[in-house]
Amino acid sequence: MPNNHATPQDAEDAYYDAIEEKNLEALMSVWERSDDILCLLPMMPAQRGSDSIRTLWEPLFKGEITLEIEIRHLHWIETDRLAIHLVEEKVSSSGQPPTPVYATNVYRKSDQGWQLLMHQNSPTPPPPSLHVPSVV
Amino acid sequence: MPNNHATPQDAEDAYYDAIEEKNLEALMSVWERSDDILCLLPMMPAQRGSDSIRTLWEPLFKGEITLEIEIRHLHWIETDRLAIHLVEEKVSSSGQPPTPVYATNVYRKSDQGWQLLMHQNSPTPPPPSLHVPSVV
Repeated sequence: MPNNHATPQDAEDAYYDAIEEKNLEALMSVWERSDDILCLLPMMPAQRGSDSIRTLWEPLFKGEITLEIEIRHLHWIETDRLAIHLVEEKVSSSGQPPTPVYATNVYRKSDQGWQLLMHQNSPTPPPPSLHVPSVV
Repeated sequence: MPNNHATPQDAEDAYYDAIEEKNLEALMSVWERSDDILCLLPMMPAQRGSDSIRTLWEPLFKGEITLEIEIRHLHWIETDRLAIHLVEEKVSSSGQPPTPVYATNVYRKSDQGWQLLMHQNSPTPPPPSLHVPSVV
């Protein structure tokens, strides 16, 4: 099912729509079909390749939890073939208050349009009362 | 002080050497001189631009802590102008056992060679006994 997204932003919109809709096929169609792809969710091991990424998301979509994700763009780097978007995701899970996390999304252009190549999350800082200094 | 790194790997080596040597000028010479640059260390707010990144690292280098960082490459994406390296950093702080974190380093090529454009860390999963499931 080629998606042929004309811009990196189209691919990004489709990615977050698929998560909110818990639509695994739509989600996988945003990813490039290659073993290069890599997904790193907070505090989970990095997953590489289509099969591993499908296996990562499948139970999350089958569960009871519903997610709403509000995206704020922090930083864009784009070339003809690669695009890197750093965003803040405000994730509301089943009506709970939103948890902010950072995410970097890397898109690559091919004959099939723009597709997701890498997704990396980082937790944002905890509230000051919980803050533990950390380096590197 | 142009560094003229011929490859993204040269820039990466210089970056981690500068951290181990606590050499702020060497560290800053690896970064591109622009407001585009962005540094995200674990559980800290993202810092953008040369001045903010210098201000982030200065107290870490002035402190007593010494760092040794062992790098394991997990994933490379390279084009003529952009290179993205996902690595595992094993960070030993003042002789303590190493803490593994993920890092994505993005390099851009200009007339001055390859320079660091973005650095993003994510903590790796905690030991199983501490593991808290998390989504997105």
